[in-house]
Amino acid sequence: MLSLSGIFPPIPTPFREDESLDLDGLQSNFVRWNKEPLAGYVVAGSNGEAVSLSFEERIELVAAARAAIPEDRLLIAGAGAESTRQSIALAEGMKREGADAIIVVTPSYYGPRLDHSALVAYYLNVADASKLPVVLYNVPVYTGLDLPVSVVLELATHENIIGLKESGGSIAKIDTMVNGTPADFQVLSGSASFFLAALVVGAVGVVPALGCFAAMQIKALMTDYESGDLESARQIQATLVGPNEAVTSRFGIAGLKMALDLAGYYGGPVRSPLQALTEEESALLEKALSEANLF
Amino acid sequence: MLSLSGIFPPIPTPFREDESLDLDGLQSNFVRWNKEPLAGYVVAGSNGEAVSLSFEERIELVAAARAAIPEDRLLIAGAGAESTRQSIALAEGMKREGADAIIVVTPSYYGPRLDHSALVAYYLNVADASKLPVVLYNVPVYTGLDLPVSVVLELATHENIIGLKESGGSIAKIDTMVNGTPADFQVLSGSASFFLAALVVGAVGVVPALGCFAAMQIKALMTDYESGDLESARQIQATLVGPNEAVTSRFGIAGLKMALDLAGYYGGPVRSPLQALTEEESALLEKALSEANLF
Amino acid sequence: MLSLSGIFPPIPTPFREDESLDLDGLQSNFVRWNKEPLAGYVVAGSNGEAVSLSFEERIELVAAARAAIPEDRLLIAGAGAESTRQSIALAEGMKREGADAIIVVTPSYYGPRLDHSALVAYYLNVADASKLPVVLYNVPVYTGLDLPVSVVLELATHENIIGLKESGGSIAKIDTMVNGTPADFQVLSGSASFFLAALVVGAVGVVPALGCFAAMQIKALMTDYESGDLESARQIQATLVGPNEAVTSRFGIAGLKMALDLAGYYGGPVRSPLQALTEEESALLEKALSEANLF
Amino acid sequence: MLSLSGIFPPIPTPFREDESLDLDGLQSNFVRWNKEPLAGYVVAGSNGEAVSLSFEERIELVAAARAAIPEDRLLIAGAGAESTRQSIALAEGMKREGADAIIVVTPSYYGPRLDHSALVAYYLNVADASKLPVVLYNVPVYTGLDLPVSVVLELATHENIIGLKESGGSIAKIDTMVNGTPADFQVLSGSASFFLAALVVGAVGVVPALGCFAAMQIKALMTDYESGDLESARQIQATLVGPNEAVTSRFGIAGLKMALDLAGYYGGPVRSPLQALTEEESALLEKALSEANLF
Repeated sequence: MLSLSGIFPPIPTPFREDESLDLDGLQSNFVRWNKEPLAGYVVAGSNGEAVSLSFEERIELVAAARAAIPEDRLLIAGAGAESTRQSIALAEGMKREGADAIIVVTPSYYGPRLDHSALVAYYLNVADASKLPVVLYNVPVYTGLDLPVSVVLELATHENIIGLKESGGSIAKIDTMVNGTPADFQVLSGSASFFLAALVVGAVGVVPALGCFAAMQIKALMTDYESGDLESARQIQATLVGPNEAVTSRFGIAGLKMALDLAGYYGGPVRSPLQALTEEESALLEKALSEANLF
Repeated sequence: MLSLSGIFPPIPTPFREDESLDLDGLQSNFVRWNKEPLAGYVVAGSNGEAVSLSFEERIELVAAARAAIPEDRLLIAGAGAESTRQSIALAEGMKREGADAIIVVTPSYYGPRLDHSALVAYYLNVADASKLPVVLYNVPVYTGLDLPVSVVLELATHENIIGLKESGGSIAKIDTMVNGTPADFQVLSGSASFFLAALVVGAVGVVPALGCFAAMQIKALMTDYESGDLESARQIQATLVGPNEAVTSRFGIAGLKMALDLAGYYGGPVRSPLQALTEEESALLEKALSEANLF
Repeated sequence: MLSLSGIFPPIPTPFREDESLDLDGLQSNFVRWNKEPLAGYVVAGSNGEAVSLSFEERIELVAAARAAIPEDRLLIAGAGAESTRQSIALAEGMKREGADAIIVVTPSYYGPRLDHSALVAYYLNVADASKLPVVLYNVPVYTGLDLPVSVVLELATHENIIGLKESGGSIAKIDTMVNGTPADFQVLSGSASFFLAALVVGAVGVVPALGCFAAMQIKALMTDYESGDLESARQIQATLVGPNEAVTSRFGIAGLKMALDLAGYYGGPVRSPLQALTEEESALLEKALSEANLF
Repeated sequence: MLSLSGIFPPIPTPFREDESLDLDGLQSNFVRWNKEPLAGYVVAGSNGEAVSLSFEERIELVAAARAAIPEDRLLIAGAGAESTRQSIALAEGMKREGADAIIVVTPSYYGPRLDHSALVAYYLNVADASKLPVVLYNVPVYTGLDLPVSVVLELATHENIIGLKESGGSIAKIDTMVNGTPADFQVLSGSASFFLAALVVGAVGVVPALGCFAAMQIKALMTDYESGDLESARQIQATLVGPNEAVTSRFGIAGLKMALDLAGYYGGPVRSPLQALTEEESALLEKALSEANLF
């Protein structure tokens, strides 16, 4: 069983000014990320603008990432799509290019018809077909659909479904899922902003946008927590909430990419229809980051 | 300027039992649809399970539809995708395969960042690049995003943006858009369920799921309205609301496809994760349709 | 059976500068309203800031309104509250003070538990106890709860439930309710913004905020519609959508009261926590009203 | 400064079969509650069906509760209403009858107009007028309004606003509020279901429906946490999530009252429009409680 313990930043996909894939930028970012205390990476996820990429680009991205990621770090590739067959096709491509696991966001467009049985059937089909372990992925802010606990409990016994990334922010839900699933089902916090709370109720890791440029602090939080120094963990957590909001709900991926640029990584432009930050937003972002003393 | 006056059913995409494209089923449906009083068709839209198709399939579908649709009927092809460059690429493919116009649903995944300026920029980029006229498309029940009136008013003066399909159901919004846009900007009702009301406030046509198997009734409504027989139009409208709900919000595309089967068309299976109707749902659908006396 | 045909503006409750009831202001407004082509009034409804009044004030308001309203015009009094017994007590007080009917908004605070059977039971209890005819009232923008069609169909056969005010804006829903209920169940449009469409599908009247200062135009719309001059009705409708939005969704009750002041009525302050319009909002409101040429 | 550290169950309001106040039931419940490890009580809050009581009943309830609550336990009385003047009047009545503090839910009916400045003004007015300390109260599931962090940060420096009860469930929001407010601003978890996580990020207490009949377990959780036995606290927390859901989001106040009956307290009926549990629901509730081994 693959361990999901640790920090798995959802890396943004670098683009050139013309919005084409910039695999050189990706490569140079990994040189630095690989020195950070990370257990692996989520590639082609929400923060990777996956829905704005063609399927070919998503697979190309995974291949390039694999070339840059050492074997002892996990490459978790986003294989979610609106139809089961698309997701299965993506899973195959990602397996071929060296991903270690796939992470599969809930389909959502036909949300009013995606009830318990439709969602269970979807994930069972993907998990049966996939040669890679499957991580469920719930992110209501983007999908408008909140994966029901009942679906998770039913899926968690499938041998190829190893865990879930929960971005919805309800700690009670994470608690219920941790406690209602087998001991080896692994829950990941979908954000650095509630990571400590998630650890306390049994999460084993985190997929933090903030981890793209502040891995050390998140790692320190986790280490402090594991060594029993809750007070120190709490203090670190408190410093992360503000900058986390800045690069997620407040300024989105354009904010995350600008933060990467400020931190010396390659951030670069977002792909349209996402827009660059306005000057005012940029100033607010800089302020939020510098107040948190992250660099 | 292309006229959008009339009835443009959003045709479902036929699949074989293995969920692969069934272009024979498509062909045979068109033989019959082409005898119905329709002004054209929407191909690869929401009811066509567009998000569940690969981009190649969407273009293949348009090509097959064009072969089956006479020149004097419009083929409006769904070219919406989450990124501007994907939408532009789809638009090119659909132009190449003979579409007459494209219909472009709002991007929505990154909804919290898709504000007025992002949506305006998105549609202007697509409309500038597209060699085909563009129809805007708002369908909040699927996207979770309600295209603001202010965006529509700003876009309506672009020479290549000829109209909008509004599925949100607010007649006041349609009224505001009809009155705030140039006289040649054409608004389509996104449903048969409020078509008469939409006509009254200035819509010129409709994209009705119900039109896939009840075109005569919808045409009769429109003709009665145009000839001043409001009372007759109202009576027809009243008979359409129930069956319309059955093949849209209540039972979704699986309901629409089953209705097609019942009406002697090829409906066939939906593509997973959508699910076939349960026996109980099937019985309720049959009841709703037979009560309305549509066949 | 009381006829709900016609125009019933939901009158704002006048306050003095200290936010106490200003019954003189009310009186003077009625002197003028009574010359307008209105069938009656809704008193102590949403636009009357009913939830901000004590129950005693609500009843006092009804008594004062009755004194000012001629017998041949209906006084429909808002008797909705969160508990059945409160609503019944209010209904009694309003009966005593001379109301002709009560209008009863859906309870909503415990919305997650207010399912079909709870809502049916609530309204049946109120209707059984009330000595006055009952009008149901659905206004999701304020309550967060959309009264289901199924509840309305079940209630419509109760002899003391004579109709419904629908403010949700879905014409298809109004159509379904008109067609699924007995012929004497009367549906009122909850807004001037979709009044013509509501008439077309069978509504008999309207409860328009705009009717507090633009009754003539709304009456003209209705007369034109009834005499078969749909084109003229449509033109009037088009002029009403903008100013209607200004005094409802855009600027709320503070906007409506300022419009009354501008039109020579007594508008006065709103009761806190509602706030007066900012200068910028006031300017935009004046612009919206003067563009529509309503005074 | 009043300390809000500890457990403050939001007690249900007991009714007789005819739905009138049952103050004897209240009295007998307090005899037992006063032996439980509680720091005080919330009276006339959401779980007390406050919105279904008349203002006189709310004050009568506070008086009766005060008579039954020893001086060394806090009586926190729900004084929220839709208008500022109502809330102030309630605050006066509750002060007169012996409450120690008031808890004030956000107004919400005119939600679209209750922006930052309206909410700040509302609470400042109430806090200025109140002779009792004020606790803010955010409960989006009932109000449909999520009190913005920015409002809380602005209000927290008012000397008479001592804390906030947060029922929304976002730990990141609680963290942000704890860290952005003065050290003496006290945050209460609005539910037992995320109490441990709330403690970890700096909450000082909890207002748990579950505390009405399972105070010992919640107290044990808090004691274990404070003594550094996080593992034991986590285990208790895990056992509380299921029963907590049963008496809150799943079965609501009727569920809570039935649980009280099962635990030997007086639960009794809910006030209409709330409905008693169905037999099926009752069986599910009993199962959820007995599995958790709470009695």
